[in-house]
Amino acid sequence: MDNKETYELTRFNVISSRIRLARNIEGLPFPNCKSASVNRGKFLAFMKGAENAAKGLFDYNFFFMKNLNATEKLAMVERHLISPALQNNSATGAVILEKTEGMSVMLNEEDHVREQCVQEGFNLPLAYKRVSRYDDRLMDELPVAYDDRLGFLTACPTNLGTGMRASTMLFLPALKLAGAIETALSKFVNDYGLTVRGVYGEGSSALGDMYQLSNTRTLGETEENIIEIMERATVEMCLHESRAREKLAHKSGAELYDKVCRSYGVLLNAYMLTSAELMTLISDVKLGVILNILPLKDTKPLDKLLVLCSAANLTLATKGCAPAQRDIVRAQLVKGILKETK
Amino acid sequence: MDNKETYELTRFNVISSRIRLARNIEGLPFPNCKSASVNRGKFLAFMKGAENAAKGLFDYNFFFMKNLNATEKLAMVERHLISPALQNNSATGAVILEKTEGMSVMLNEEDHVREQCVQEGFNLPLAYKRVSRYDDRLMDELPVAYDDRLGFLTACPTNLGTGMRASTMLFLPALKLAGAIETALSKFVNDYGLTVRGVYGEGSSALGDMYQLSNTRTLGETEENIIEIMERATVEMCLHESRAREKLAHKSGAELYDKVCRSYGVLLNAYMLTSAELMTLISDVKLGVILNILPLKDTKPLDKLLVLCSAANLTLATKGCAPAQRDIVRAQLVKGILKETK
Repeated sequence: MDNKETYELTRFNVISSRIRLARNIEGLPFPNCKSASVNRGKFLAFMKGAENAAKGLFDYNFFFMKNLNATEKLAMVERHLISPALQNNSATGAVILEKTEGMSVMLNEEDHVREQCVQEGFNLPLAYKRVSRYDDRLMDELPVAYDDRLGFLTACPTNLGTGMRASTMLFLPALKLAGAIETALSKFVNDYGLTVRGVYGEGSSALGDMYQLSNTRTLGETEENIIEIMERATVEMCLHESRAREKLAHKSGAELYDKVCRSYGVLLNAYMLTSAELMTLISDVKLGVILNILPLKDTKPLDKLLVLCSAANLTLATKGCAPAQRDIVRAQLVKGILKETK
Repeated sequence: MDNKETYELTRFNVISSRIRLARNIEGLPFPNCKSASVNRGKFLAFMKGAENAAKGLFDYNFFFMKNLNATEKLAMVERHLISPALQNNSATGAVILEKTEGMSVMLNEEDHVREQCVQEGFNLPLAYKRVSRYDDRLMDELPVAYDDRLGFLTACPTNLGTGMRASTMLFLPALKLAGAIETALSKFVNDYGLTVRGVYGEGSSALGDMYQLSNTRTLGETEENIIEIMERATVEMCLHESRAREKLAHKSGAELYDKVCRSYGVLLNAYMLTSAELMTLISDVKLGVILNILPLKDTKPLDKLLVLCSAANLTLATKGCAPAQRDIVRAQLVKGILKETK
């Protein structure tokens, strides 16, 4: 499969690619280790060093969790910039957030430092390149805990070694509709040693037919190796989806066409939309874009719409309007963006 | 209430006004009386006389039921031009049908002659005027059975006297939504001695929130009297509906607005539409027009759409396309007309 074929196969189904590295600082107890006494000087040096590594590399804001309100934190979780675990660490949690939101460095999550880079579409190597640049500078700034045999030391043994998690966010509506998603996904877990989660990380369900595929093995593999396996698995998953889509279009063309058109009509006309319904409708419409049914050419504005319209982000955008009004504002926002996109 | 007020109150809720007169010919057994022997000469004279009465009065086509196929007959029933009873009389049934479809004279239904005139909107007097002109000419042509005590003689005693049925077709979505339709209608049956049916006559259910209000008493009342009672009752029913609509808009404004907008979106975008779903959606959209929610100013094109898209009429219009295709054609037709109407 050449680059063009891969691009065509993955362009609408791989929403984003993410690399995350877990790092810890020598001589500092892990953030969750409540019993150990923390040397204040060392702790401050760690926080300063982590920030220094970002200086000059990318434009950022530095946020302490304790200085953000609940809505602001939840909005960051909805935008996949911080994890629910960091959101809950009001004592020491912090994030160095690139203004364009590609890079984010969480401090005092499960590990001292969790560096992540998210790239739109299918591009794990670029995400890795960007995160590595920060990682190199971090290691210049701070004594990162590393063991010759175990590799990078992490709070949880499942992250030992490379400390790396590579993941792709996949949109798999046809496999879901065909009822084949469970089989397809469990095959991956077994064959590649990968894991699959809902879009908001572990334990969350697959909203909007989106699934996050990521590696589980971090030990005894090189970073390049992990990326290669993830790329192969992602392409294969998109192939499965593409075949399921063909079957679906062949088997229930008219019904599918009708469903997609109706969902588009409801999105364009509804006066109120809940967040959950929006997920379902956008999923139908995205499938419609892929199948060339609708007067829209790209799914990206729809993915952005999902984030923009998620509960906390909408609350922020509308400066805290009443919950009863939120569904109305969401529907207006959707209409506006869809009309622009056409 | 002055004319302008009455017009405003009734314009969207009274879809049409209908007057029907039942007449029979002296010396001929009633059509349903199978045992009696029919004098062929008298029968032919009756058929000829009924047609003569129409000649020069309105442009018409003369159809024998036996010469129409099942779809053509059903299409006439759907357009309210003939009754299901006439549709089933393939032996002697016939209809004299005005080309513009306002006047229709059924021959050998339950009675020898059933003259009817349907007018768009709320206009019983005009319907009566038109049907009377035919009736006068029929009496010049033929010996119509009349008794000084009982009035016009009819096959069924419920039609004795004037032989007249006056009816208005009402659109009552708010009363239906408010769950108040049963109470409101049964009050009318009692107070005014009227009856209420679904749009396709006796025994049919109320599709699309449409109800046919008509008089039951034909004996001991003058024609003018019946029309006056029907007019009073129709206006009162529209007042009930108007109040129910205000309450509904006040109580569940946003939900109602949302429902109407969604139905409009589905109508504009669906790839397939069944006849039953179309009824429901059109009903929502008509309510939206009345409430000034939608970019449509009139409900008449929507009422025409209902007739145009009913099963048999659609089959005729599409020259007998496969039933599987019919829902697709219906949706396309709807889209086209709605876009024109905007």
